Amino acid sequence: MTQSVSTPQRQLPPSTVIREDDSATVNVEELGRALLGKWQDIRLQARKLAGTDALHTPAGLTHTEHRLRVMDQLKILVDADAVHRAFPAYVGGQDNHGGNIAGFEELVVADPSLQIKAGVQWGLFGSAVLHLGNREHHEKWLPGIMSLEIPGCFAMTETGHGSDVSSIATTAEYDEAAQEFIINTPFRAAWKDYIGNAAVNGKAAVVFAHLITKGVDHGVHAFYVPLRDENGFLPGVGGEDDGVKGGLNGIDNGRLHFSNVRIPRTNLLNRYGDVAEDGTYTSSIESPGRRFFTMIGTLVQGRVSLDGAAVAASKLGLNIAIKYATERRQFNGASDTVEEVLMDYQQHQRRLLPLLATTYAASFAHDELLAKFDDVFSGTDDTDENRQDLETLAAALKSLSTWHALDTLQECREATGGAGFLAENRLTALRSDLDIYVTFEGDNTVLLQLVAKRLLADYAKEFQGADFGVLARYVVGQATERTFHRTGLRQIVQTVADTGSEKKSAIALRDPRTQHDLLADRVATMVAEVAGELQKARKLPKAEAAAVFNRNQHDLIEAARAHAELLQWEAFTRGLERIEDEGTRQVVTWLRDLFGLGLIEKNLAWYLMHGRLSSQRARTLGEYVNRLLAKIRPHAMDLVNAFGYGPEHLRAAVATGAEKQRQDESMEYQRLLRASGAAPVDEKILIQRRKQAAMGKR
Amino acid sequence: MTQSVSTPQRQLPPSTVIREDDSATVNVEELGRALLGKWQDIRLQARKLAGTDALHTPAGLTHTEHRLRVMDQLKILVDADAVHRAFPAYVGGQDNHGGNIAGFEELVVADPSLQIKAGVQWGLFGSAVLHLGNREHHEKWLPGIMSLEIPGCFAMTETGHGSDVSSIATTAEYDEAAQEFIINTPFRAAWKDYIGNAAVNGKAAVVFAHLITKGVDHGVHAFYVPLRDENGFLPGVGGEDDGVKGGLNGIDNGRLHFSNVRIPRTNLLNRYGDVAEDGTYTSSIESPGRRFFTMIGTLVQGRVSLDGAAVAASKLGLNIAIKYATERRQFNGASDTVEEVLMDYQQHQRRLLPLLATTYAASFAHDELLAKFDDVFSGTDDTDENRQDLETLAAALKSLSTWHALDTLQECREATGGAGFLAENRLTALRSDLDIYVTFEGDNTVLLQLVAKRLLADYAKEFQGADFGVLARYVVGQATERTFHRTGLRQIVQTVADTGSEKKSAIALRDPRTQHDLLADRVATMVAEVAGELQKARKLPKAEAAAVFNRNQHDLIEAARAHAELLQWEAFTRGLERIEDEGTRQVVTWLRDLFGLGLIEKNLAWYLMHGRLSSQRARTLGEYVNRLLAKIRPHAMDLVNAFGYGPEHLRAAVATGAEKQRQDESMEYQRLLRASGAAPVDEKILIQRRKQAAMGKR
Repeated sequence: MTQSVSTPQRQLPPSTVIREDDSATVNVEELGRALLGKWQDIRLQARKLAGTDALHTPAGLTHTEHRLRVMDQLKILVDADAVHRAFPAYVGGQDNHGGNIAGFEELVVADPSLQIKAGVQWGLFGSAVLHLGNREHHEKWLPGIMSLEIPGCFAMTETGHGSDVSSIATTAEYDEAAQEFIINTPFRAAWKDYIGNAAVNGKAAVVFAHLITKGVDHGVHAFYVPLRDENGFLPGVGGEDDGVKGGLNGIDNGRLHFSNVRIPRTNLLNRYGDVAEDGTYTSSIESPGRRFFTMIGTLVQGRVSLDGAAVAASKLGLNIAIKYATERRQFNGASDTVEEVLMDYQQHQRRLLPLLATTYAASFAHDELLAKFDDVFSGTDDTDENRQDLETLAAALKSLSTWHALDTLQECREATGGAGFLAENRLTALRSDLDIYVTFEGDNTVLLQLVAKRLLADYAKEFQGADFGVLARYVVGQATERTFHRTGLRQIVQTVADTGSEKKSAIALRDPRTQHDLLADRVATMVAEVAGELQKARKLPKAEAAAVFNRNQHDLIEAARAHAELLQWEAFTRGLERIEDEGTRQVVTWLRDLFGLGLIEKNLAWYLMHGRLSSQRARTLGEYVNRLLAKIRPHAMDLVNAFGYGPEHLRAAVATGAEKQRQDESMEYQRLLRASGAAPVDEKILIQRRKQAAMGKR
Repeated sequence: MTQSVSTPQRQLPPSTVIREDDSATVNVEELGRALLGKWQDIRLQARKLAGTDALHTPAGLTHTEHRLRVMDQLKILVDADAVHRAFPAYVGGQDNHGGNIAGFEELVVADPSLQIKAGVQWGLFGSAVLHLGNREHHEKWLPGIMSLEIPGCFAMTETGHGSDVSSIATTAEYDEAAQEFIINTPFRAAWKDYIGNAAVNGKAAVVFAHLITKGVDHGVHAFYVPLRDENGFLPGVGGEDDGVKGGLNGIDNGRLHFSNVRIPRTNLLNRYGDVAEDGTYTSSIESPGRRFFTMIGTLVQGRVSLDGAAVAASKLGLNIAIKYATERRQFNGASDTVEEVLMDYQQHQRRLLPLLATTYAASFAHDELLAKFDDVFSGTDDTDENRQDLETLAAALKSLSTWHALDTLQECREATGGAGFLAENRLTALRSDLDIYVTFEGDNTVLLQLVAKRLLADYAKEFQGADFGVLARYVVGQATERTFHRTGLRQIVQTVADTGSEKKSAIALRDPRTQHDLLADRVATMVAEVAGELQKARKLPKAEAAAVFNRNQHDLIEAARAHAELLQWEAFTRGLERIEDEGTRQVVTWLRDLFGLGLIEKNLAWYLMHGRLSSQRARTLGEYVNRLLAKIRPHAMDLVNAFGYGPEHLRAAVATGAEKQRQDESMEYQRLLRASGAAPVDEKILIQRRKQAAMGKR
């Protein structure tokens, strides 16, 4: 049903009710190692680099200045040997795909503009040459790409088509006589748009265009097209600057268009499709659809790395906001003289700790995604199925983690008040820069639909040949138990529904099997329900079928989201099991429970409507979540310290300890003033005294 | 219980089940007038001004350039007589408080920096002199403030204290011998911070400080303090620049500190508290607490105007995104040749139309808030109760509408994809600028707690003398029917729970009484539940009582949010009733239903857990919301056109019709190509043909 339960290593450990130890402490170092994941050394090396001043950018530069600065910083990356790990040894690389991404992700900590500009150059432009070209292409162009001698563009998106790549309109028609392709932009909507390096720096581009030869359109292929020499655009090439953006202003995004631009036949990046001198088209992949998806699939690393970068940015934000929240005091409730630390307020915990839990989930999930990516791209485990799993997983996780990063950075901004709005605290710039992560490299809403499509396909495969309509009904009632733990879930739902005591209910809810089965059941049921609805469209004419699909689009997306959340939960749980220190595992278990129960709380109406939780039990959930928050609260600093970012990464004035200094200074001043006897008397106290005196007289 | 049902004009019309007319059309002009509200003429005049080029700011300026530009623009506002309406006639104003705010709000459309800088000068600095000073102060300083001869600061917030104003630490101690106040900043946390006009332009400030005379601290008062002359800071005054911010970079926010700065005794803005030459303190308000809240209360217009500005910004965003969504095509489902318009996708409707509905609700609610503000400040209806209502209402609505603006602008950005990220489409800058609206003039989270406090106080008043604990239980079961429509709600809950048919359920759900009672019941029940919990704290020591309060903080805030949402719903419904054109009323009724049912859907778990809706009925809600979306969809453009903003206000490249031009050009190109016979054949079609041929041969 879901890839998450199909392989043995994804089996959950036997259900154990952990005895809770409220005096548990976190071993920050061990937890930190667990979070660093498989490519620890590269990650630490990249962080060291990302912490150097030369890679930072002061606030307030114009976009022109910022662009220049970032371009210079790319050269620092080249010199530091920080960006060539994925390239083949025969051009000076290391054939290390997973490690490359791990290192790349950490660049976000220096400046997201730097990261994405590096991503454009080596992750998109360079990777396209690497994965879509042949060895000759590699030897010809990769050295220049790696050294930055050829800054280049990845010219896929058009003004008229973003996430629907197969519908782009740029053409590359083969001219047999000249043995050249002629690149053309037929109309304004076909201009390449939002292309990094296009406005200023790009000397060449990998251009995606429909390959036409002998009157046949063979679909979208990639072509290596020179753009500029020292005098600017080459003949036939034109474009314009996208100008200032909402963020990432260190990158010169722009538009490109082509009018009869001729390139040699051999500039076709021909790994999956080639044109002979006489114009004959050949491909190792017969189906044009599969061919297209195979080519596009080689670019999955963009999504993988955005997932990792989004997690890193969330970690930075939470580190800043939680550090501040443990020092900042505001309002006094419990005492007349000492104000409360923000982090002690329940609402502040409600605002930040669930985001922290989700960040842990996303971090562990990303680790597994990256390992899978490396398995596929290193060739260790490069099967069709694994590639498909990888693509689905990347789409699912990238969507969730990039949205999560925006929510997190915004909440962190608000949780630090006016200070959070100052550039010196970085939160607003990080959020502005990451804004585009939710729609580039695949619009999240579109990506979730890809995930849903896969879920539906898997579902259909499972029930191949059966009467779909009947099955859908069957599945809603039964499949859950069948697919997951047949007796398990029923038992748990019963337990959760029926036990009279709140305590028993809490024990049931913190059982990982309960959490898993509740989450997994929801995915299975939602998919089955939507599949049942879509089944109705099967024999309808195209337009009506599309209407049926459209009426279920929202539910479909929600099913995909639920699936992605389940994947995160599973990864979090597996990550947890690898932690050896008991106290640490205890605290992180609370965090995992907070994540799992938070998901259930968010979708509580669904669980109630579908009879998965009784009203009575559901009402205990909020209270239990509050108790978890209180338990996690004392460990909040340890949990963000384990992310392993230092002051050179945070670079936020409110996270330097300055707030504690100010609070200490202020409290000491007040204390001395009170002690001196020179403190003015509060009028309120005077009034009280007067009242008391008046009463004494009576 | 709630202010929303306490006055006669707030009564709902008798429940009527409207006969639905699916062919309804919107009279954009009439709807536009309804949305303009009470101060139509001023609003239109302000929009005309806001549409002029001179008040706009191109993207990409440095913060220094932006500051200079906005300062110059303020002078344009002075010359246009656009910002003096609230001031007294005797200094050249118009004593028009509501009109002043209506005009001020529309400035956000030109540039939020311009709006907030104007707000600092005339709405905060000028208003403080107006409302806290005496006529002598007015005549002495207001002319210079109005003309911008004295650019000034509103120096309330300190680095150490934002929303908790009573705890600021700056002192103003009276020196009898010199008849002067001595202003001091005792430590770093007491520096004034985030103060507009402080970094560069401010020549004077209204400084909030603890007034100390004869050894008694009389609490926070406001003092007029000169800051700079042509040579910079005056002796004893210092400060620094807050630097670049996440938005509003046209404003020179900064920090200020004071070391033995002496000002004449008469610089105390003494409307609510004065010090005689001999140092004797007098005040017309005996209670220091009430005195403080009265002084602070005069500044409520900041919150009122931010509410209006947030609504205006949401309107701009939705106009841009919906206009684009009706032109932009992406993916083809129903046809081979024509792609779908974004707005026809269910998910796109789900993303934008509920935000549109909320914007209407917020717009109508703001109108009522502004009218109440004018009633109080014009003196037409200036009672203590009305002032309190105004403050609660402002806190409730400002919180919701400013958060809503951020959500809306973000969703609009994402809904316009990569284009939405470009500065030329304005969405990102608007969002960045409005970010701070959710925490300045009162942090939203703090404001909602003020609202909750009021709800609890009203609740306690109602049950004065009764045993609180018992009552709480009583109220959960009964108060709803008592407070609202005793028979009404029970009947409806029954109806909604029990009717077998989905259609009957839909009819019940679209009955405004059902919606109202479901929403109102939730508020009443939540308040009663929290009150019951807090009751436990009554006799506990301070620290334990604070802990009880803290354990209920989240529920308290959610109760306040629910209350604020109910207020919006009621205002929307009253606004709706004033629309005369039947078709328009029909469409806007759908929108109101979308808003109301959206709130119920969002809190569906609560309704289920509390037995207010049966699972069976709850499951029809999502489907009904989808049907509403489909009904509203054809009117989406009319509904945003009714906001009345023209291209000079939108100034977004994607909302100019350019997208339609591109789509038309592209489709026409494809059509001609197909007609010419020169179009390449799609390889997929070729394969189909080959397969068919092969089958023919067999």
